[in-house]
Amino acid sequence: MLAEMLENLKRKAPLVHNITNYVTVNDCANILLASGASPIMADDGAEVEEITSICSALNINIGTLNQRTIPSMLLAGKRANLLSHPVILDPVGAGASKLRTETAMRLVNELNLAVIRGNISEIKALASGGGTTRGVDADVADAVTETSLGAAADFARRFSEKTGAVIAITGAIDIVADSKMVYIIRNGHPAMSKITGTGCMLSAMLAAYLAANAESPLEASAAAVAAMGLCGEIAYSRLKEGEGNSAYRTRIIDAVYNLTPEALESGAKYEIR
Amino acid sequence: MLAEMLENLKRKAPLVHNITNYVTVNDCANILLASGASPIMADDGAEVEEITSICSALNINIGTLNQRTIPSMLLAGKRANLLSHPVILDPVGAGASKLRTETAMRLVNELNLAVIRGNISEIKALASGGGTTRGVDADVADAVTETSLGAAADFARRFSEKTGAVIAITGAIDIVADSKMVYIIRNGHPAMSKITGTGCMLSAMLAAYLAANAESPLEASAAAVAAMGLCGEIAYSRLKEGEGNSAYRTRIIDAVYNLTPEALESGAKYEIR
Amino acid sequence: MLAEMLENLKRKAPLVHNITNYVTVNDCANILLASGASPIMADDGAEVEEITSICSALNINIGTLNQRTIPSMLLAGKRANLLSHPVILDPVGAGASKLRTETAMRLVNELNLAVIRGNISEIKALASGGGTTRGVDADVADAVTETSLGAAADFARRFSEKTGAVIAITGAIDIVADSKMVYIIRNGHPAMSKITGTGCMLSAMLAAYLAANAESPLEASAAAVAAMGLCGEIAYSRLKEGEGNSAYRTRIIDAVYNLTPEALESGAKYEIR
Repeated sequence: MLAEMLENLKRKAPLVHNITNYVTVNDCANILLASGASPIMADDGAEVEEITSICSALNINIGTLNQRTIPSMLLAGKRANLLSHPVILDPVGAGASKLRTETAMRLVNELNLAVIRGNISEIKALASGGGTTRGVDADVADAVTETSLGAAADFARRFSEKTGAVIAITGAIDIVADSKMVYIIRNGHPAMSKITGTGCMLSAMLAAYLAANAESPLEASAAAVAAMGLCGEIAYSRLKEGEGNSAYRTRIIDAVYNLTPEALESGAKYEIR
Repeated sequence: MLAEMLENLKRKAPLVHNITNYVTVNDCANILLASGASPIMADDGAEVEEITSICSALNINIGTLNQRTIPSMLLAGKRANLLSHPVILDPVGAGASKLRTETAMRLVNELNLAVIRGNISEIKALASGGGTTRGVDADVADAVTETSLGAAADFARRFSEKTGAVIAITGAIDIVADSKMVYIIRNGHPAMSKITGTGCMLSAMLAAYLAANAESPLEASAAAVAAMGLCGEIAYSRLKEGEGNSAYRTRIIDAVYNLTPEALESGAKYEIR
Repeated sequence: MLAEMLENLKRKAPLVHNITNYVTVNDCANILLASGASPIMADDGAEVEEITSICSALNINIGTLNQRTIPSMLLAGKRANLLSHPVILDPVGAGASKLRTETAMRLVNELNLAVIRGNISEIKALASGGGTTRGVDADVADAVTETSLGAAADFARRFSEKTGAVIAITGAIDIVADSKMVYIIRNGHPAMSKITGTGCMLSAMLAAYLAANAESPLEASAAAVAAMGLCGEIAYSRLKEGEGNSAYRTRIIDAVYNLTPEALESGAKYEIR
């Protein structure tokens, strides 16, 4: 029951520590509040362990990473692991630069991650140690279609087995897998790709859902992914004539704010394989 | 007369230097413009003294502070003091980490602050050198209620006496105190806590109001606090069905943009003790 | 034909590398997406050369520059030059601090810039090595009016001759010049100055237009400048009662999202001298 995942989130109102990029950080904070969680952003090595200790989950996003923040990601991640807080990794742009690929791989290798969420190119880059990521967007050649879906689901399952993390590959069709089970989720709208940070926002939401549902990481992840896609649909349907990607962003966060557990349950379009 | 404070701000259009966090910085810039001021953001040690010299006020916000920006806060603050520019401190998350508490206390000790604005937990952490801040939100146990209001007002007055700064404690009920007088302000709406950065935005506005009303720091602070709360009410009343915290943020900044001195005067709900 | 410039942009959907300030970075990313381009932000010295290599243009904006990012600007710029990618410089606040003026001049001297876009005070500061920039806004004494337009156009032409870059001076009247020709553009709305980052957003758009129209830098620049101004007009006409600068920002990005080549052609108000 996905509804229960959101109910728990609203009831527990977890505090989520984010080490994230400066491009979409405000949207991540507002979508966490919209979800029912509270955000705190802190990236200095001198405080990240302490900050993560007072939180219930850690969201690491490597967009605009730098030499100062990379060690902070590791420090915070290790402390979160010690405290059994779920750690979410968003490997933004893995495959687009050596620094990003290597940092993401280091985080995968040195941390115990609860969820890794990215587009198919980023996750492939992580799994293979290289890749053809087109900046921060998925490479067209990689896109998950109905034809390639089976192979992509198997790939996610195997990568989950290898890493121990739930693997969330988001795109036109979303895949959320652990080593045994895969959710195929068909919510969302293509126009979401015209807003910066829908992926980052989802990763922040994943941290919130996981914090509130530590015992059900796969279902909590599926709930977060379905919630984001569903809110993308609701928001799109509310767009007025003359509105574009900026109003759409506002309407998505607003839809998350107004999403009830019942609406999530009835609006989520998924199958389990 | 609070109206006069806003009239002076609109007429003088002061330039405000901000050293602030990367989470809510865009909202701070836009709310300064909405208020009638102009923002400049600069945090590198090599330029902050020069930048603050061409401004009329300095807003120091310690959210997402780091080893590079902390010395910049001190440098800029000392220069602003030398030039008798009002310096506002927003001790975001003081009490949540040693780095934040110590940095905030260092700023209080080494600078001559015009206003310190925070939630009750942050201000208590500052006053006591410790605390139980819940991330960047106030601890529930600390909340200012009608019952605890008298004690909180006394606390603010004493802390103002100690620091020489106007103390603005914002929450469900707002307290703005110098060592002699306290404004109790009852504007605002609970949903404001579901937007990231309403506190940061208010601190930026405080800098603007103080820059334009240097001779009346207490009244200027009360005007800024009442303005923010009143705009929270106006914006809430303008929310349409299906809107949430993201639209609310936009509508608050827009309400500040459209706030007239007369509307501030008639809408402000305060008593002086 | 300005229409063709936008057609090419929509068709090629270039990836644009941005090293930009943390104040308006989210708006820059969303306006690039709205224009038909894709953004990537990266500022660490260890990855900027690689990131810029997979892009088609580089947008360097010196707002909130720091000791860590200045070398990254130079590294990325030199690599982009090597690859013949257009490099756009936005010298935010040149003239307001020695660090900004010197950094901007160093970028002008060491890089081969395709476009330099700023307000008149910033461009004058660059041309003279000093200035009286009022923070990040133009000094009133510098403003381009119908009277001073001829002199300003000549100045832009000469500065283009000296630097080899298209010079875009934006304000109430916009000037876009190379060494031989000047576009005088009269789109826009005064309220755009009440939004933070309209200049930054335009610079990002310039990078997108140049990436898609490398052979026509002057016309591509004029198209971007006219597009931004026209969208400012469209967005203003769509503002509803009670809305202010925050809604206006959203509506401008939305107008860019919906702008067609035909609408740009028919709405652009310019003369060529």
